[in-house]
Amino acid sequence: MTHTLELEVRDYECDIQGVVNNSVYQNYLEHARHKYLLDLGIDFAELARQSINLVVIRAELDYKSSLRPGEMFTIETRINRISKLKFAFEQKIITSEGKPAVNALIIGTAINERGRPFMPEFISDLLDNNA
Amino acid sequence: MTHTLELEVRDYECDIQGVVNNSVYQNYLEHARHKYLLDLGIDFAELARQSINLVVIRAELDYKSSLRPGEMFTIETRINRISKLKFAFEQKIITSEGKPAVNALIIGTAINERGRPFMPEFISDLLDNNA
Amino acid sequence: MTHTLELEVRDYECDIQGVVNNSVYQNYLEHARHKYLLDLGIDFAELARQSINLVVIRAELDYKSSLRPGEMFTIETRINRISKLKFAFEQKIITSEGKPAVNALIIGTAINERGRPFMPEFISDLLDNNA
Amino acid sequence: MTHTLELEVRDYECDIQGVVNNSVYQNYLEHARHKYLLDLGIDFAELARQSINLVVIRAELDYKSSLRPGEMFTIETRINRISKLKFAFEQKIITSEGKPAVNALIIGTAINERGRPFMPEFISDLLDNNA
Repeated sequence: MTHTLELEVRDYECDIQGVVNNSVYQNYLEHARHKYLLDLGIDFAELARQSINLVVIRAELDYKSSLRPGEMFTIETRINRISKLKFAFEQKIITSEGKPAVNALIIGTAINERGRPFMPEFISDLLDNNA
Repeated sequence: MTHTLELEVRDYECDIQGVVNNSVYQNYLEHARHKYLLDLGIDFAELARQSINLVVIRAELDYKSSLRPGEMFTIETRINRISKLKFAFEQKIITSEGKPAVNALIIGTAINERGRPFMPEFISDLLDNNA
Repeated sequence: MTHTLELEVRDYECDIQGVVNNSVYQNYLEHARHKYLLDLGIDFAELARQSINLVVIRAELDYKSSLRPGEMFTIETRINRISKLKFAFEQKIITSEGKPAVNALIIGTAINERGRPFMPEFISDLLDNNA
Repeated sequence: MTHTLELEVRDYECDIQGVVNNSVYQNYLEHARHKYLLDLGIDFAELARQSINLVVIRAELDYKSSLRPGEMFTIETRINRISKLKFAFEQKIITSEGKPAVNALIIGTAINERGRPFMPEFISDLLDNNA
């Protein structure tokens, strides 16, 4: 299953080069992941309040073309289990003309309140059933 | 005329208190102003490329209640000319339950490429006809 | 007493106009307030973990001149009690040439875990003794 | 040569998990790269004004441990030419206790005003002489 989210570049997200700043794409990608997880019944913010923290352990980002002020774009997100404790998001940011803007691979895990990686069963189940 | 924009709180916009950080409301308000200006035919980003800079000279913000992760909210924006060179935006951020989150008064002007306040006629006309 | 903090503009804080974005000044001002409070023995982040939230209820910002990439600047912060439950920060952002960039008045209070304004005695004492 | 920059976590850079948000590390890393380039005589902001844009084409980030509010940290940056048109920054964010927080590999190039990759000779020379 691929989750799709359409967003629009806001002027304040653009830097002195007149395009979206590199770090902002990580904001976009995080937002898309959290919306996707929410669709699966996993609420990042609610988990954080319970001291269960979903965290990114590795990010690979290929910047293909720059988004500009006011541009519409789409974020496609897929999730895969890659080990007992890790999951991977494949994400693509695509311009309104269908061109790739950013391709990303984001690897994450869950951390319990003692800072240890773990995978709560309800998350594990949701990932297995929906990925 | 009142311009209305509906947005959603993104998790990354929230800080260690678990609510939207104060500075982020200025991002929301700026985005709403630029969308409104665009509706009037005034493109902030395009003007910046021509070295005509619309700038904020004063902001008053009353924080009434905090927005939380995932919350939907509405931004209402009205614009008024207040002098030959200045315009004022009255803006309200309203929660999905209709409660005020932030009330703002943002006073702006335009600055030419030599850093001097001025008001291009086409902006002046658009403001007069639509405000 | 006036608290002074010297910072430097980072390129990513600047927008398509080539100057520091309006909302970023609120980041600077917040950081200066928190550093000042920390000097007084009040740890914003630690209080947040205890569900005691220092919050801004009103901000007035006068933008006098724009900071540019790489520019050094100083933030001066003074705090005053203005009522039983409210305190006010007078803050000035000053360019390295001594020109005003932003003058701000930030009014705050503390909120307990039930969302009610209150003023913990230890904060009250610290403010009274140091302001 | 390794460029070293010491910074401090600001509270507003932390998110609902109480730690620095993932995207903010890219801000830190960008700032460190630009400071390093400036030491070499390459001014990112000035180049942008001349429509010469230094851009990131790939970023790999390994998140090792989280930085917390108020924490001091160090960013180490090394630069290497990896091809005629590309350079690579190896960057490490290290906690004040000497633990790795983030390891990053950032690959960049320069883009001319027509959007084409190129490498101005003065940049090429500076990189070769200082890397």
